[in-house]
Amino acid sequence: MNTNRQDAVTVLGLGLMGEALAHAFLRAGHPTTVWNRSPGRADRLVAEGARLAGSAAEAVAASPLVVVCLTGYDAVHDLLAPLEKTLDGRVLVNLTSGTSGAARETAAWAESRGAGYLDGAIMAVPQSIGTDDGLILYSGPRPVFDRYEPVLLGLGAKATYLGTDPGLSSLYDVASLSLSWSVLNGFLQGVALLGTAGVDAATFAAFAKEGLGAVVGWLDGYARQIDDGAYPALDATIDTQRAAMAHIVHESEALGVSAELPRFVKALADRAAAAGHGGSGYAAMIEQFRTPPQETV
Amino acid sequence: MNTNRQDAVTVLGLGLMGEALAHAFLRAGHPTTVWNRSPGRADRLVAEGARLAGSAAEAVAASPLVVVCLTGYDAVHDLLAPLEKTLDGRVLVNLTSGTSGAARETAAWAESRGAGYLDGAIMAVPQSIGTDDGLILYSGPRPVFDRYEPVLLGLGAKATYLGTDPGLSSLYDVASLSLSWSVLNGFLQGVALLGTAGVDAATFAAFAKEGLGAVVGWLDGYARQIDDGAYPALDATIDTQRAAMAHIVHESEALGVSAELPRFVKALADRAAAAGHGGSGYAAMIEQFRTPPQETV
Ligand SMILES: NC(=O)c1ccc[n+]([C@@H]2O[C@H](COP(=O)([O-])OP(=O)(O)OC[C@H]3O[C@@H](n4cnc5c(N)ncnc54)[C@H](OP(=O)(O)O)[C@@H]3O)[C@@H](O)[C@H]2O)c1
Ligand SMILES: NC(=O)c1ccc[n+]([C@@H]2O[C@H](COP(=O)([O-])OP(=O)(O)OC[C@H]3O[C@@H](n4cnc5c(N)ncnc54)[C@H](OP(=O)(O)O)[C@@H]3O)[C@@H](O)[C@H]2O)c1
Repeated sequence: MNTNRQDAVTVLGLGLMGEALAHAFLRAGHPTTVWNRSPGRADRLVAEGARLAGSAAEAVAASPLVVVCLTGYDAVHDLLAPLEKTLDGRVLVNLTSGTSGAARETAAWAESRGAGYLDGAIMAVPQSIGTDDGLILYSGPRPVFDRYEPVLLGLGAKATYLGTDPGLSSLYDVASLSLSWSVLNGFLQGVALLGTAGVDAATFAAFAKEGLGAVVGWLDGYARQIDDGAYPALDATIDTQRAAMAHIVHESEALGVSAELPRFVKALADRAAAAGHGGSGYAAMIEQFRTPPQETV
Repeated sequence: MNTNRQDAVTVLGLGLMGEALAHAFLRAGHPTTVWNRSPGRADRLVAEGARLAGSAAEAVAASPLVVVCLTGYDAVHDLLAPLEKTLDGRVLVNLTSGTSGAARETAAWAESRGAGYLDGAIMAVPQSIGTDDGLILYSGPRPVFDRYEPVLLGLGAKATYLGTDPGLSSLYDVASLSLSWSVLNGFLQGVALLGTAGVDAATFAAFAKEGLGAVVGWLDGYARQIDDGAYPALDATIDTQRAAMAHIVHESEALGVSAELPRFVKALADRAAAAGHGGSGYAAMIEQFRTPPQETV
């Protein structure tokens, strides 16, 4: 089974995502060995040229690079713990979603068994894997990433290396998701408000896209203040913004749409003001995000 | 005092914003009459060529276009109610911040007194007034806007007409602010999460800007679903996203940063799932924003 080819790859786990990963490797021309706990999930891949291993151990032994993509880190540990001898000398790329802590533990475990380790976070749907839109974040030792980057680019043109700490890929993943949902929720609040005047969502979307461009332009400046730990109000103070926030709560209530998000936004800013930041710029709000509320009160 | 020139303008209220508006009119070459309740605030403008009116009535009488920018709509009513005869035949552009309801009432009042009326919302700081960045939203009768657009462009190159309903400018204003704070809060959550791994805010800002580009690309599709009232999950279902949301709550708690925003995001999605939208796409969340929570339960 061992192809002895340096560009050979193994994919463990052929769920929705694992199957897409194996497909992409095949399309990129890599000798691809696959394995899945339940039978049957490899059929299409085998028809396309993948080799189905008889066991996970056989699959790991088949290639210098082993990609694993299961439901969670517990499953990864259950599967790989018995195979630690076989992993020795290979590189394990774990694309299973999990916490930064689990990623760091798995990295330490793999490295202590003689395996190279990269942790990855897939920020793409299975259909985007292997395309220009396929964004996958990687973290772990730079030399390991550099060596396998050409192979990993087969999974998506946006393979992004973040740094040595194996926890980074999952942290960037959650940070980025958190931002995405915030944008969507802010957009939906706007849609709800404007809907009361008969403005449709498509009209607001066009307007919102312009406005988002402006907000995006502020991020670097706020980031600089956060990194410097000083938050002078270059435009509006938090107190000025609290007045506008109160206005949005009031408007939402008056129009009969949900005022939950505006109230949430205002409560955070009120807390920053109570902590002495009413005269600061919005970057001072970082303190409300760094520390859970019970500890600030 | 009456210049009889069609491009003459009057500015009532010379606070931070009113002064910036009058400056911009002067720079654009308009004969500019100003008035402020408390004396002294017109001095710099007069030095630049503005005419100071002896009373608000005299100021209104001086120009066909009267811009008012005070603390709030109550102040606007207190000031203008006694001047309704003088307003007859002029156009009032109210750039005071307020609710859509107040804007509609003021429009009805002004129009019943024979005045043309535009309501406006200034989405800019005083320093941007009269520049390419000076975004001011206007709503009210289209012919009134069209006639005075060349003059209003002097207040900022981004003069944007939204529609006949005079409430639109303040609604777009709150919708847009709501979105901006959501973006900033989502960004700050990410900064807090990544800060635990020593990633600085500037590094995340660069990454976040890329990611926001992707989210912005989804808005049109979600908007279309909202306008159609059908929310098929084209990518991830709300249930799939709830699992990722739970993961972010867990990660935030494990890292000791505030989990408030992730919990808020998840609670909203949980409610959508409880309302039967677990298998829908994220656009189905609009129902959580349209209706206050007590009414959905
Ligand atoms: N799908 C997406 O859009 C997407 C996007 C980004 C990230 N991800 C991440 O990718 C990972 C996989 O997702 P998926 O969509 O492929 O999930 P899935 O379709 O549910 O597949 C799960 C896979 O894990 C295997 N598995 C579970 N427990 C196992 C165990 N104890 N031992 C061995 N194998 C086990 C399953 O094997 P059986 O077939 O035997 O059950 C199956 O191959 C997850 O961490 C997910 O968060 C997915
Ligand atoms: N500044 C900004 O960055 C900004 C941005 C967007 C929108 N806006 C909006 O612009 C409007 C004005 O803001 P601002 O920053 O110029 O506020 P400001 O500096 O506090 O000035 C308030 C103005 O309102 C006048 N005023 C208040 N009550 C009055 C009354 N009963 N009769 C007559 N005049 C009265 C004040 O006159 P006195 O001098 O006699 O007190 C002063 O000229 C507000 O609605 C604000 O929300 C401001």
